[in-house]
Amino acid sequence: MKAAIVTIGDEILIGQITDTNSGYIAKALDKIGIQTIEMISITDDKNHILKTFATYQDQVDVVIITGGLGPTKDDITKKTFCDYFEDVLVSNQDVLAHVKSIIEGIYKRPITQLNIDQALVPSKAKVLFNKVGTAPGMLMQKNNTTYISLPGVPFEMKYLVDNEIIPYLVKTYQRPFIIHKTILTYGQGESKIAEIIEDWENNLPAYIKLAYLPSPGRVRLRLTARGLEENVLIEAVNNQANKLQPLIGDIIVGFEEDQTIEVMIGKKLEEKKQTIATAESCTGGKIGYLISSIAGASSYYKGSLVTYNNQMKSQFLQISHDFINNHGAVSEEVALQMVQNAKQIIQSDYAISVTGNAGPTSGDNQKEVGTVYIGIATPSNTFVEEFNFGQPREKVVERAVNKAMELIYKEILKN
Amino acid sequence: MKAAIVTIGDEILIGQITDTNSGYIAKALDKIGIQTIEMISITDDKNHILKTFATYQDQVDVVIITGGLGPTKDDITKKTFCDYFEDVLVSNQDVLAHVKSIIEGIYKRPITQLNIDQALVPSKAKVLFNKVGTAPGMLMQKNNTTYISLPGVPFEMKYLVDNEIIPYLVKTYQRPFIIHKTILTYGQGESKIAEIIEDWENNLPAYIKLAYLPSPGRVRLRLTARGLEENVLIEAVNNQANKLQPLIGDIIVGFEEDQTIEVMIGKKLEEKKQTIATAESCTGGKIGYLISSIAGASSYYKGSLVTYNNQMKSQFLQISHDFINNHGAVSEEVALQMVQNAKQIIQSDYAISVTGNAGPTSGDNQKEVGTVYIGIATPSNTFVEEFNFGQPREKVVERAVNKAMELIYKEILKN
Repeated sequence: MKAAIVTIGDEILIGQITDTNSGYIAKALDKIGIQTIEMISITDDKNHILKTFATYQDQVDVVIITGGLGPTKDDITKKTFCDYFEDVLVSNQDVLAHVKSIIEGIYKRPITQLNIDQALVPSKAKVLFNKVGTAPGMLMQKNNTTYISLPGVPFEMKYLVDNEIIPYLVKTYQRPFIIHKTILTYGQGESKIAEIIEDWENNLPAYIKLAYLPSPGRVRLRLTARGLEENVLIEAVNNQANKLQPLIGDIIVGFEEDQTIEVMIGKKLEEKKQTIATAESCTGGKIGYLISSIAGASSYYKGSLVTYNNQMKSQFLQISHDFINNHGAVSEEVALQMVQNAKQIIQSDYAISVTGNAGPTSGDNQKEVGTVYIGIATPSNTFVEEFNFGQPREKVVERAVNKAMELIYKEILKN
Repeated sequence: MKAAIVTIGDEILIGQITDTNSGYIAKALDKIGIQTIEMISITDDKNHILKTFATYQDQVDVVIITGGLGPTKDDITKKTFCDYFEDVLVSNQDVLAHVKSIIEGIYKRPITQLNIDQALVPSKAKVLFNKVGTAPGMLMQKNNTTYISLPGVPFEMKYLVDNEIIPYLVKTYQRPFIIHKTILTYGQGESKIAEIIEDWENNLPAYIKLAYLPSPGRVRLRLTARGLEENVLIEAVNNQANKLQPLIGDIIVGFEEDQTIEVMIGKKLEEKKQTIATAESCTGGKIGYLISSIAGASSYYKGSLVTYNNQMKSQFLQISHDFINNHGAVSEEVALQMVQNAKQIIQSDYAISVTGNAGPTSGDNQKEVGTVYIGIATPSNTFVEEFNFGQPREKVVERAVNKAMELIYKEILKN
């Protein structure tokens, strides 16, 4: 069963915003065995939309469209739906009552004509009721293809995908199973890994596909199996993953089944009833933010001291000005003091420190751009590692964050 | 002049990673007057790639392709290029020497066959030398369309776009001008704004287009003008933007010309030689991270105290346990203490505090999910505002961050 995802909006095509909706939808479809074969972003132009709709007709089972449903003049998806399906807009009374309850009840504003028009839907459409916003979703059929239109605001789109679209597709279509298993490795390059696992890769069965997903400092290896028997697929994928252990066990930090490393860190800390804190300089608070982004983080994340300048390093991490001046703010010695003191002062079980020079210029410190020291403190030991993460600034920060997460996760697994 | 952007990779189509490359490329093309009419993500399948190449032939002037250039078996773009252009792969000696210098010189590893194969390029291709990685870019022509293939790793793609592609396109093609001006508003809904500016919008000249870009807590209004005379377009767009001032001046916080609010805050603070610090709870460090993400932030950003739990609020922000227990950690009183104390203790000119309940459960505090207090301290005053940002967790954090950035920017403009 195949799907295409269409995003309507000039803002994406000029690079003003990044389309994150399509990825969310694709992931939800993948989970129920529907393969997304294309994602496309097109202009707010009626003919362009009509042409795209026609391209996918009878080529895929489902087309999911986001964007172009807002109340303002630049939003034209509904009118284009009417053209494509030879239909007219009618006011839906349930949607109108809901729009009124939001505008008058929650926003305490008088309702306007634009708000009233949000309740207009094509007469033949199945309306997908949007409890969390004013623009409804719509579902229409042409020949063998179902077209579903959703608002572009991410949390409204997500609400409709989770509560309306997925249940509808599960009920309506027979689907195969798609099983993924992603092996998370840190510390070795893509081509080196490919060389080590070449024989294993060549012997994969035809229904299992391997993909390499490299990013600075880590490579994810994704196995994907497609077929009709879920248990058989799961077993086959697990068997293949197990065969990797003797080959690259030293660089595997875990399996990511829809899980980021911050989720895995959180689970382990929750299990062990242990806590973590960070003392960050060049990463600006991003490590703490990642850790705190997980629901339930308050049970294990104490907080962060983001000591971006030296005054704050002295004041909150109790590192003397002389010590910083002698060794330099970007130094092994300062990273060690940061992590030791953070763990002790905050009274956490684990701590991470990062101090480095992200660039673009080397500023008032002597170390070259890209130099980063990461400190790790655990219940049983403390150490600092030195890295050079190159350039530019954003890459240095990203690699430092990834490396810090890798180092701490490996330590948490040991303790 | 028209472009299409093609991304190759199953990882995008299953929602495992978000394509941010296309947006970067589109923005760079837009700046030199090239309109991206479609962005498409397709599977790692040879026939799918060939069909997509054919679709755009003679329909657009330039097709830019990212992904599928790595050293491993799942990367097939180069072979597919040879099929499409009826060409063969040959080893490029300059690229080979460069790959060797990276693998042997920087990574200190012996070169492998996979590394050697990275120097293979179609014999008729113009090679785009990739100084920051091992996979070269390639440029080939078929009839009236130029096809450019780039590696998918973001910083390598960016390097080639900035240093090879854009200079090539500027030199090779005549292009019109595209002028954007984006007006940044905070605090009013999309439909309400549309109602107020309706007459103005109806009177826009045909060559100027308006788009509404809503996100939680803010709406951006983007004016786009296309034409041959740059000065005329700039003047017309500025005139139209000025006409908005008497209509919605109270909600306009500035003009975004490729500038995020963190860049605008940074510029103002740098000008005024003032400093900022944050004391964050439910936002977990994200506000500080945003502020620090700008090159040069060390001149005005002192750091953040991310006091995720109450112990840290007492310890670093000197708010007594009794005070927290009496008022609750999520309260106006605690937000006020946080911001006052952060400013005083860190000795910054401005400070932001955030305490709230992002959910999903209300945890050990009494306030309902979505309640957030934001405190602002400036050289001349201090205040706290209360918000309910609804659900889910990620939306609460996003709205809190946006609102805090809005509030502090408005204050910085006043002071």
